[in-house]
Order: sequence, then structure tokens, then C-alpha cells
Amino acid sequence: MPVGLGPLPTLHPVPGFRLGIASAGIKKAGRKDVVVMEVAADARIAGVFTTNAFCAAPVTLCKQHLSNAPRYLLVNTGNANAGSGKPGMQAALTTCEALARLTKVEPGQILPFSTGVIGEVLPADKIIAVLPQALADLAENNWTTAAEGIMTTDTLPKGASRQITLNGQTVTITGMSKGAGMIRPNMATMLGYIATDARVAQPVLQQMLKQAADLSFNRITIDGDTSTNDSCMLIATGQAAMEEIGDPTSSEYILLSEAVNSVMLELAQAIVRDGEGATKFVTVQVNGGGNRDECLDVAYAVAHSPLIKTALFASDPNWGRILAAVGYAGVPDLDVEKIDVYLDDVCITRNGGRAAEYTEEQGARVMAQAEISIRIELSRGEFSETIWTTDLSHEYVRINAEYRT
Amino acid sequence: MPVGLGPLPTLHPVPGFRLGIASAGIKKAGRKDVVVMEVAADARIAGVFTTNAFCAAPVTLCKQHLSNAPRYLLVNTGNANAGSGKPGMQAALTTCEALARLTKVEPGQILPFSTGVIGEVLPADKIIAVLPQALADLAENNWTTAAEGIMTTDTLPKGASRQITLNGQTVTITGMSKGAGMIRPNMATMLGYIATDARVAQPVLQQMLKQAADLSFNRITIDGDTSTNDSCMLIATGQAAMEEIGDPTSSEYILLSEAVNSVMLELAQAIVRDGEGATKFVTVQVNGGGNRDECLDVAYAVAHSPLIKTALFASDPNWGRILAAVGYAGVPDLDVEKIDVYLDDVCITRNGGRAAEYTEEQGARVMAQAEISIRIELSRGEFSETIWTTDLSHEYVRINAEYRT
Repeated sequence: MPVGLGPLPTLHPVPGFRLGIASAGIKKAGRKDVVVMEVAADARIAGVFTTNAFCAAPVTLCKQHLSNAPRYLLVNTGNANAGSGKPGMQAALTTCEALARLTKVEPGQILPFSTGVIGEVLPADKIIAVLPQALADLAENNWTTAAEGIMTTDTLPKGASRQITLNGQTVTITGMSKGAGMIRPNMATMLGYIATDARVAQPVLQQMLKQAADLSFNRITIDGDTSTNDSCMLIATGQAAMEEIGDPTSSEYILLSEAVNSVMLELAQAIVRDGEGATKFVTVQVNGGGNRDECLDVAYAVAHSPLIKTALFASDPNWGRILAAVGYAGVPDLDVEKIDVYLDDVCITRNGGRAAEYTEEQGARVMAQAEISIRIELSRGEFSETIWTTDLSHEYVRINAEYRT
Repeated sequence: MPVGLGPLPTLHPVPGFRLGIASAGIKKAGRKDVVVMEVAADARIAGVFTTNAFCAAPVTLCKQHLSNAPRYLLVNTGNANAGSGKPGMQAALTTCEALARLTKVEPGQILPFSTGVIGEVLPADKIIAVLPQALADLAENNWTTAAEGIMTTDTLPKGASRQITLNGQTVTITGMSKGAGMIRPNMATMLGYIATDARVAQPVLQQMLKQAADLSFNRITIDGDTSTNDSCMLIATGQAAMEEIGDPTSSEYILLSEAVNSVMLELAQAIVRDGEGATKFVTVQVNGGGNRDECLDVAYAVAHSPLIKTALFASDPNWGRILAAVGYAGVPDLDVEKIDVYLDDVCITRNGGRAAEYTEEQGARVMAQAEISIRIELSRGEFSETIWTTDLSHEYVRINAEYRT
């Protein structure tokens, strides 16, 4: 059951960006599992990708093709085409070639993406067979169906949309993402696509994406497993009547960047809200660190601890487990007597020990909520970091024990 | 259900080392929860302790007292006395003082140990009330009852024993340990006590313990959570008729060290076999690393991945998840095309892709076993490391969601 995630909001079409969906029966017959996206001829595209050394064949191809003025993005679910060796690379190339023939562009102008089971070669034939169907379906108002078409173990589609005014011109930013397991993005999430009709120079667009990813997709974790297929793309179709944004200090850049950040944060948090087996949406905030890395080390130690995650599932304010995780996070010369820990507004630990005024009832009240904030004050510097995570439930074990059956 | 762990083996008494057990009702009425150990007056004691910055009050005291020619070890379960601030430290001291009064030694000659719930002050009064009972119970042949007396969520007591001949003299090495959650020791395990009647100089004994811990307790993980209370003690009572071992290159050192290693490995593996919710006993071996650290990084990435652990629980040879973990373990410049992965004798991955001859049936056969070996060949150097871990089951979630209720 997703936590605080409802039906899709209105997803405004983005001029110059069309989406088409088809069913190839890759893992399950009848499931929407292929999405083609077409971008305007002079669009700019930025991408961030997994740091996993075993990155999937489509990730490798996608990085190579990114500088070739790409015209189409091709996504499949049901098969990650990762750990699939040379046959997997050949299969990914074959799908690019097939789509290129149908659309009369070069194979190098296709960006491929796959998500699903790792270790099996992509069934290229099945995908190629439905490309005409996906192309016939291309439309700017297909975001909702496309968001469903990229789902795997997700229980709900994920999308976000904003419209802003840049120099009197309405500009749209719309995106979609998918999770829901093997989520500890390290450059990007499993799959995320954000499009805008703004005109933005490519290097500036890449900078905007990297900054936004570091505030959103790179700050979520469900199980600590960094995927082989994480890819997040930001597309600027340039269809809006405006000057190209080429200066990352301009007010236009800042306005657009804020909207992109907002869309990507909503998409990233949606992945956590729909995390495998999630019953809680948990914010972990670490303040007062000596640098960003130690804040993140503490936050991820807390977010990855199976003992804390099961206590969250049980709504048990077992704050000793939080202290233990802070203690083993590897922060050098940590003075535990300066540490305070809060559950929402309730101080549970002050100066490294149980807060005098704390009662189990107060802790239990917060833990019973579906959305919980754990705030850790290290009191040794000026840095802060915030990440988002889930609990560890029986349902998580069931989903992942039965995933391939 | 523990994996391959039966009733306790014969635990030979160690001359000069007596154990006494009592029930203080710390967490549950009637449970054996206090163990006192008495060591001969001229015994040597070595210890290794958790690296958790939030180490418990007894760990701090134990380190301070170790150089004071300790005479008694005092263990309680049901309360870890960690994250308990100054009142916790005072409570630990109070128990040491009480035992010292009864035994006519200095409080600094008592080594205290606690395990159980974190974040609550130790109920010193309850412990002190049963010290006379524990002292009256002191006997050299009490290892079996003591091994039960240090259990928390363990389902079975854990002990191991060897007898060797050193220069014609029989020498005994007997130990006990307890788990079973918050287990990713980083210096030692939750609690481990190994005694021998050999005569060994203290610095040499400390070296022997550190080496043995790095081959046993420091190579196991259940949930990746490094405890606040890990402590492992090696006691040499010196009662055997022999010269003191003072040279770590002597044949006596090597023989004794091998026996100590063997006892400690059996104790450490017993903790994994009885890991919370464990249905599988899993050996993760990484060969061909460029150094020890990268072997361990890969091994722990595999051992901590919730996706691999749930696949192990499901007996699903989902080897793609193993590749993904190897890929995100952080090994610099990893050449995935050199990597082979084996499940027991079955090669599942060769040169980074699915082995041509591999069939799901072969993988399923190995995964159905209760004891499974995952071997990863990095083919980039001469270093190897082996660690032991468990799967992640519904029972793990249940135990840890209900731990305090």
C-alpha cells in the first residue's frame, strides 16, 4: 500500500514531446511494457546514470548516443538487459536499429532504457514487433498512459507537472518515474523522464539535471541496492517562444531550475511512497554535520538498518536502534554526548542519552503515523542533509521472495 | 530454525575458570540472565570490543578495567545499558562495586558486560540481588548452563571446545557466544568468551585474539547492524603445567592459536546459523581481489543486499541481484568482463554474463540447500576473503517488529 500517494495529478502536455505505448508481452501478456518518446528535432537532452559497474547494456548505449542529437527514447519493462553480456548489447542495438528504420533517423539517435529482471537477454523481437503500434500511438497528451507503461513492481504510476511563466511565456515541466525496488540511486533513479518546452543549452541543462538529481533521486533509498539500470533524462524541446537559457546564473535558469527541482522531488518521493512493501514514508534529516558526506553517512546508516526499518514497520519507538546506527555510521571522533534525536517534534535523545521528559507514549504517537521524520542533531558543524526512505515489512520480503515466480 | 546447529557439544572445563548462573528477572521472570565468571588470580585476559561510537557503558568500563588484573566477569542479558548516559555508567559501576565487595577484590577488577534492549538504564538492584546466588553456583563444569544464560533472541546456546597437546601437556580451549541480531561485528561479536588453561603472556594473548577475531567474529554479518555492545574475551588461566608462551612465532603459539581460531570460528558460525529468522547458512567467498578491503567490500555488499537475502530465503537463483551487488560494491575500475560467479560448484556467471552451460535447474538445486556458498572470482589480484551470513525471512521481520512487545 503506497503511503500518501494518490491518483496521478494533471500532467500537462509538453509541446515537442510525444509519447506512445504498446504491449509486447515481455514478462506478462497484455501488460503495457513498451514506451516510445519522440522529441522535437532541435531538443536538448541531459542524462544521469547509475554508477553500478555492472550497468546494463542500454545504459552503456544511452551514454554513447546522448551526444548524437537523439530523437527517440525507447523504454521497456519486464527485462533489465543487465548482466547479459555481448548478446544483451546486440539485442539493445537491434531494437535501436529497428526503431531508427521506422522513423528514418540514425540508430545512434535512439536512447534505449530497460528495467525488470537482471541477467536475461532482452527479447528484441517482441519489442520490435510492437514498435509500429507504439509509433502510431504517439501523442503529447499520453503522459498518464506512459507513466503506467514504465511500471514494474510499482503499484501506482508516478507523475508530476508544473507550469511557470518565463518572461511572460507559459512554460511546462512534466515528468514521470518508476521504482519500486533495488532503489538506492547513485546518479539517478531507476527510470525518470522529465520534459520541458523551455529552450536550454545542453551543458546548462546537464548542470540543472545533476543539481536536481542531487536534491531528489540521489537522496532516496528503499533497500540500499543501487540498480544496474538507473537512468534519469531531462529533455528541453525548445518549442516555447523564448531566448535559449545559456547562463546558469540568470533569473530564467533559477526559475526553471526551481520548477524542475520541484517536479523531480515529487517524482523521487513518489518512488519512496510506493516502495516495495512500504507502510511508512520516512524522512531522515541530519543537521549539524562537519561536512555533507558525514551527514549522508549517518542518514543512510539509519535508512538502511534492517532493525530500524522493522521497528518503523512495527510502529515501535525503539530509539536505541537509531543511536546504534548513528554510532556505527563511521563519523570520525563522534562526540555522542552532543547528539540529540527527534521523532517529529518529540525529543527522544538529548546529549546522547534518553531525554528526561520523553515518554514511550510520545514516541508511540509519532510512530503510529504513516509519515515520520527522524531528525538527528550532531552539533559539530553547519551541514545538513535530508533523505527519504521506507520501512521493512513482511510485504517487502514476500514481494522479493516471489519476484520471479 | 537454526541452520545446521544442534545441541551443545561437550564443553571441557578449563582449570582456573569457574562460571555461576542466576535469574534476576531483568526482562522476563525466571529466565537465566546473569552469569558470573571467575578467573584464577594470575590469569591473563585479552579483549576486543565494538567500534560503535555509541558503545555501551559496560564496554567503556571493561576497556578501563582490562589492565587491572581482572578477577571476575559479570554478564547480564535483557538490557544492553547502551545509550543510557551517565545513569547507565553509574549503574554499571554499582554492579561492579557490589560484586567486588562480595568477592573481596577491587571494583576495577570486575569486567562488566550487558546485552539486550538499547536505551534503558540497567536495573542494577535486580542484578546485585542475585550475585550471591551466582557466586554460590560457581563451578568449572557450568559452561552449558552459562551458554544458556547469555542468550537473548538466540534459539540455541552456542559453545565449542578443543583439547590439544602442548609439549606433552593436555591444554583445553572452551568458549561460548551469543547472537542473534544487530550482528555485524566490528572487532568482536555481541558476546564471546573463550578460556584456556594455557599460560600466555598478555600482549601475545591480545594478538592471538585479534587474529582469531579477524578470521571469525569479524567475518560474520546477519543484518549489517554493528552493535553497541560487541565484546569478545580470551582468558588464559595459566593453570596448565607449561612455560609461558611469549613468542608469537613459537610452535606452541601456533598450535594454541590454531585451536583458538577453530573454537572461535565454530562460535561465530553458530551465531550465523542461529541468526534471527535464518533459514539459510551462506558462505560468501571473494577471490582474486587486488587487496583485502575490496574483497570484503564485495562480500559485504552481497551479504547485506536485502534483494539477495530475500532471494536466498525464496531459494530463487536470482543471480542478477548478485551481479548488481558486485557492481555497486565500490571496487574502483572493476572490469566486469573478468568476473565469474559460482553457486557451490555451479558456474552461473562467466566473464560478466550468464554462463553458457548454466541452467535454472542447476541453480535451483543449490539454492534449495540449507547451506549455500556464493563464490565470486574478481580475477584482478591475489587476495581472498570469506564471510558468513544468513537470508532475510518473514521470521526476521516478525522477530524484530515484535522485539520489545
